[in-house]
Amino acid sequence: MNAVTSERKARIALNKVSEPMDIRIASLVDELGVMGAWRQVCSGQGKDQERFAARIADLDLDRTLHVAERLSIRVLIPGDPEWPSGLDELLLPPLCIWVRGPADLAASVVRSASVVGARLATSYGEGVAREISYDLAARGFCIVSGGAYGIDAAAHRGALAGDGVTIAAMAGGVDRLYPAGNRDLLEEILRTGVVLSESPPGSSPQRHRFLARNRLIAALTPGTIVVEAGIRSGSLNTARNAEMLNRIVAAVPGPVTSTSSVGTNELIRSGIASLVTDAAECAELLGSLGTDLAPQVHSAATATDELPDVPRRVFDALPIRRSSTVDQLTRSAGLSVGDVLGGLGALELRGLAARADDGWRRAG
Amino acid sequence: MNAVTSERKARIALNKVSEPMDIRIASLVDELGVMGAWRQVCSGQGKDQERFAARIADLDLDRTLHVAERLSIRVLIPGDPEWPSGLDELLLPPLCIWVRGPADLAASVVRSASVVGARLATSYGEGVAREISYDLAARGFCIVSGGAYGIDAAAHRGALAGDGVTIAAMAGGVDRLYPAGNRDLLEEILRTGVVLSESPPGSSPQRHRFLARNRLIAALTPGTIVVEAGIRSGSLNTARNAEMLNRIVAAVPGPVTSTSSVGTNELIRSGIASLVTDAAECAELLGSLGTDLAPQVHSAATATDELPDVPRRVFDALPIRRSSTVDQLTRSAGLSVGDVLGGLGALELRGLAARADDGWRRAG
Repeated sequence: MNAVTSERKARIALNKVSEPMDIRIASLVDELGVMGAWRQVCSGQGKDQERFAARIADLDLDRTLHVAERLSIRVLIPGDPEWPSGLDELLLPPLCIWVRGPADLAASVVRSASVVGARLATSYGEGVAREISYDLAARGFCIVSGGAYGIDAAAHRGALAGDGVTIAAMAGGVDRLYPAGNRDLLEEILRTGVVLSESPPGSSPQRHRFLARNRLIAALTPGTIVVEAGIRSGSLNTARNAEMLNRIVAAVPGPVTSTSSVGTNELIRSGIASLVTDAAECAELLGSLGTDLAPQVHSAATATDELPDVPRRVFDALPIRRSSTVDQLTRSAGLSVGDVLGGLGALELRGLAARADDGWRRAG
Repeated sequence: MNAVTSERKARIALNKVSEPMDIRIASLVDELGVMGAWRQVCSGQGKDQERFAARIADLDLDRTLHVAERLSIRVLIPGDPEWPSGLDELLLPPLCIWVRGPADLAASVVRSASVVGARLATSYGEGVAREISYDLAARGFCIVSGGAYGIDAAAHRGALAGDGVTIAAMAGGVDRLYPAGNRDLLEEILRTGVVLSESPPGSSPQRHRFLARNRLIAALTPGTIVVEAGIRSGSLNTARNAEMLNRIVAAVPGPVTSTSSVGTNELIRSGIASLVTDAAECAELLGSLGTDLAPQVHSAATATDELPDVPRRVFDALPIRRSSTVDQLTRSAGLSVGDVLGGLGALELRGLAARADDGWRRAG
């Protein structure tokens, strides 16, 4: 049944019958609104008839929503509390996104970074991706990546090891945990984080869907970090998307003799990306968020901007959603126990940290 | 005997009794000229008495010049045809420099690059230093470095392998081929290139002389390329000198896990150095020379600025002092035989290349 009785249903129906970044659909929505665009597409006049008729004939919206609900897949549209506002900055924003997993998407990406790179990664690249993601997660950053082999998988694994939330943006449907070799990893992500896609459940991963997916990764977060990329890596496409969206773009350098670092070195050489060597440098870059992107982080930054160096480093090391012991803080902040205790005292005075059962947590 | 009868002798005498970058001497020269400064130093009044008296007592200018001549060491002062004008841009230029070897110093550095780096280099860094220097030499660049172990030695060796002129700027006297382990290399440099020092023959290499030497390396060439450097490498000092002199500063990136690349990655990250991965990128950066530095190259650049890409690349690949076969040109320019032949035709038409016995050479 296809009773399109709401903007939500119209968006889902348009999403089902078209591919991501369809310019005709975008122009109809722009001109007629989503309800009007759906009516126009259904009227089957002219070119729209040819392009959308087959999928409209196959469409069973009620069944689609029923199946999604059964698989605990939720659909987000612009304006939903969980809709990540960064997506609104895309030239061709998604009509809706399909989301699985317990984390709140909008809240997670407020303090987040995309960590991406080549599938054909070296152990150097995988090691660096894992370590940077681990350290960023320990600093309270959510790690967004593409769920692919190589750098993406290492980034997700690092974030999970650092007890962080991690988000995998997929090219195919979120019911298909692709690639098969990362199935266990994606299932682990689903326990605490999010797997999302612009393409509806049942969609297979196809080349143009990967390119469309890359722009979501770039738009979701304040910054994209490319860890290792050959000259033709799709992660360079993500970096270019991030640049066009005025996001922070950073890249990890590598040996000039390594084909897996040709793309990252060129991003730096051409000035598209800043060179980063560790999570602290990433966090420093990501600290200067645009107010439109992340108002919560921005106001937190205002409160902590005045902090001296040591309390600030302790604050950065305090996780957002958990508490942390002094011992853990000395490791993640790279400070002495005395400095951590002093820093916690200064933060407590300012209402920025509070004692928890088993250590300290952020407050305020 | 110390009959200081000329500006040349006054400069040499002042050089002998003082250390490089002596601010008192510089200020006396500025105020009184070199002859006046020498008279003032000899008058032995006040502090000058304490500081210079012992060395003045030891000074035997005629013997110094006699020994230098016997060792085929020449002394250059500002205004000499062979004096490299880049040194005049130093805040504290040398009073004179001591030079050994057959190459013309001023002519050699017109098209040149400093290639420097850590003594504690990795095989990665040494390989890259050697290859970049080889390729730059094949493109007609003279390679300047410090004659030290590690990156410096690899740079000199690459230049020699590429049949290029190479210059070693030493901290100690040019009669002392230091370090001992590079003696054979330095003797090979002396067959075609130059070994030079600000400190007179007989001087031992001392820490402050290395720092003074670094500024000469930076000032001699239009650009400095740091290949590999730990966070405390003296080559970072050379890079900072080059930056202060508005020279081009480039650095080769390396693994963020390598302590030997911490300094080079930081030079790039901080914006002091441009990232380079090969000689072509170095040549591109070095192509935009300041007019004050290298008027000869500048006018050549004017003639070649208008060239389309392919002839320009062929021109860049033509060595300055030798001829090159078409086969060699295809390799060093990275072009097809057809492109090289077409490019040579275009260059010949413009009078920029001419046929030689065994190939082609630069003309004009």
